[in-house]
Amino acid sequence: MPLLVMKFGGTSVADLARIKNAAEKVKREVERGYDVIVIVSAMSGKTNELVGWVEQTSHLYDAREYDAVVSAGENVTAGLMALTLQEMDIPARSWQGWQVPIQTTSAHSAARFVDIPRANIDTKFTEGFKVAVVAGFQGVSPEGRITTLGRGGSDTTAVAFAAAFDAERCDIYTDVDGIYTTDPRITAKARKLEKIAFEEMLELASLGAKVLQTRSVELAMRYKVRLRVLSSFEETDENSGTLVCDEDEIMESKVVSGVAYSRDEAKLTLVTVEDRPGVASAIFGPLAEAGVNVDMIVQNISEKDIGGSPKDVTDMTFSCPVNQVARARKALEDARDAGHISYEDLVVDTDVAKVSVVGIGMRSHAGVAAKMFSSLAAENINIKVIGTSEIKISVLIDRKYMELAVQALHDAFDLEKA
Amino acid sequence: MPLLVMKFGGTSVADLARIKNAAEKVKREVERGYDVIVIVSAMSGKTNELVGWVEQTSHLYDAREYDAVVSAGENVTAGLMALTLQEMDIPARSWQGWQVPIQTTSAHSAARFVDIPRANIDTKFTEGFKVAVVAGFQGVSPEGRITTLGRGGSDTTAVAFAAAFDAERCDIYTDVDGIYTTDPRITAKARKLEKIAFEEMLELASLGAKVLQTRSVELAMRYKVRLRVLSSFEETDENSGTLVCDEDEIMESKVVSGVAYSRDEAKLTLVTVEDRPGVASAIFGPLAEAGVNVDMIVQNISEKDIGGSPKDVTDMTFSCPVNQVARARKALEDARDAGHISYEDLVVDTDVAKVSVVGIGMRSHAGVAAKMFSSLAAENINIKVIGTSEIKISVLIDRKYMELAVQALHDAFDLEKA
Repeated sequence: MPLLVMKFGGTSVADLARIKNAAEKVKREVERGYDVIVIVSAMSGKTNELVGWVEQTSHLYDAREYDAVVSAGENVTAGLMALTLQEMDIPARSWQGWQVPIQTTSAHSAARFVDIPRANIDTKFTEGFKVAVVAGFQGVSPEGRITTLGRGGSDTTAVAFAAAFDAERCDIYTDVDGIYTTDPRITAKARKLEKIAFEEMLELASLGAKVLQTRSVELAMRYKVRLRVLSSFEETDENSGTLVCDEDEIMESKVVSGVAYSRDEAKLTLVTVEDRPGVASAIFGPLAEAGVNVDMIVQNISEKDIGGSPKDVTDMTFSCPVNQVARARKALEDARDAGHISYEDLVVDTDVAKVSVVGIGMRSHAGVAAKMFSSLAAENINIKVIGTSEIKISVLIDRKYMELAVQALHDAFDLEKA
Repeated sequence: MPLLVMKFGGTSVADLARIKNAAEKVKREVERGYDVIVIVSAMSGKTNELVGWVEQTSHLYDAREYDAVVSAGENVTAGLMALTLQEMDIPARSWQGWQVPIQTTSAHSAARFVDIPRANIDTKFTEGFKVAVVAGFQGVSPEGRITTLGRGGSDTTAVAFAAAFDAERCDIYTDVDGIYTTDPRITAKARKLEKIAFEEMLELASLGAKVLQTRSVELAMRYKVRLRVLSSFEETDENSGTLVCDEDEIMESKVVSGVAYSRDEAKLTLVTVEDRPGVASAIFGPLAEAGVNVDMIVQNISEKDIGGSPKDVTDMTFSCPVNQVARARKALEDARDAGHISYEDLVVDTDVAKVSVVGIGMRSHAGVAAKMFSSLAAENINIKVIGTSEIKISVLIDRKYMELAVQALHDAFDLEKA
């Protein structure tokens, strides 16, 4: 029997009416001849309520007990979804993590999958059950304690089940109807993509298109699980939403697939840093330890390289989320006070945004960067920092130009047209 | 290490402040040198919310899924209680039913204990944990599904753990401070009992003193678990509350220990029933099948016994909760229509209450019934039905006299004095 994995997030199962709506979508797939594994999140708001209780009880809480408490929300949804399906005459059974059992590491609140044995659920399919409803976001450690995967972990649960059960596809039902070339709130010309490659999705997700949890896309890429993102709140059929898949499945890909942005960036420059081997590690080590998510890094050429001053000094510029600036400043000052690094000044610009163009086509096409820069220049937008990867070019610009930049690039790369 | 079981009901863990208050009581016992097993209910209101969702989803719900959903409430409390104890520097760990594992039958929503293996929890005590916090009301079936014991099952969980772990005592913390000679709302003379025998508690519980679940008392009696009922909301020490224990522990027992009542009774009389072997079974079989809880039964002597009419007929009177009268009437009419029984009329009196005196001393003392009847006669209260057991005498009377009867009997048997 072909098998589908269908995942419903918190807003898709927010109340009994929405659970019923989701169950209707499951029913349709059963009628098409699929066995279905449904992965559910907690009803929206429930996990926050549980997390709130834990945090009010204990600041430095025991993560084992945190996991035992917060996993309760998904268990409730799983049971209610199974009951709803039974009411529709679909043989369904709920599964909590320990019943499968979903084996994970012992890293409570950030556990990783070790194994998802198929035997228990397969037996039920053999007995005539059509649907297994699995509580997302949770598993069980080798010590027999409940673990959770961290927030958003239900996407990852869905992909892991799709891999373990050789699912034909993993459908992620959420509150958007697919992946767009850019944010439709910024330009009405944004177009829903029919397909997108895993690598592109990874760059888009980490850049702020918060539809799929990054780790779930990584896992899907590794196990070649075809992921589909589609809406819980619309009528859907086999062609709805956006398919996230291997690039081999994408016949005619554009050079650029989408324009992403991140509004709340900050640019920090360490002025007159000693230019010697190991200085980068001396700077970014303490930042990493302080939990600062450094994104782009640019090191100016040092003056001696161009025959200037004989002193071996340079400037070092990097970006991070704007709410981590205080933490970054403290980490750097501590490192300077401890004598690990030296700098004359730390210049901070908290009024920048990041705009990126993403596309697997870039690998084989030259001229993307040139086109991007000339488009921005035509709008008189000054580029402050440039960063590139194999399938992405990012720039930091003044925040006030962000929308304009996204619109200009969307036009320049013709993303409106399929 | 001596071990105590402490059980906290829903109102005792209704919010984080109350959980903390309960944890303080646990801490005191740990400081006295006990290892403690804490049994917790769901935060009050939570189980009703979950049950409501199940019932709204499905009328004839699958009891397996019902159990999977409603057990979530206790799991949350168990984790929060463990965290609260940890904050007080008491090594504590939460336990869900499957983690112990609490083995039960497969009778979902009404499961019975099969075994509570000690190994897992004992290992943690050996490792230095002082408290095991166990989610009450639940277990796991041989099929690996979550089971529940039915409402109020947390009391039963507590007693079962006390038996399995040879606990010195099982303390049931609730919203009353003990067991009283009668309901203090009916007479201010009601006195808290220091001790009460299991058998007496069983009669009082089933008669309406709704403090302990009947099954938990039966279990305690069978395994000679000393039960103590005391208040969550007051300062308590070793002598607080009421000890429910074996009658051997009660040195000087009164003939009557308490006066119980049940307000919402109905009296039904089948007029002119055929008086032949098997007629009682033909009447009460259908009533049992219809779920009618028949309590007292009286069969009038038939007229032939006293040389009256030659017809072999009699009247049959019984009592049941007033909200089951409609169901009883239908069951009887169906049985008559099917030709299984015959009767001329069904006379229903829904204005009656039951009042009972209970005491193990009755076994060896005569004259209790006479004293009861004369006390009621002195107040001009007419007795409609009389029923007796070895340690209890019950009467049905007009409901309007109920409070008066309770007060009169409380005085007659001198219950105000210790």
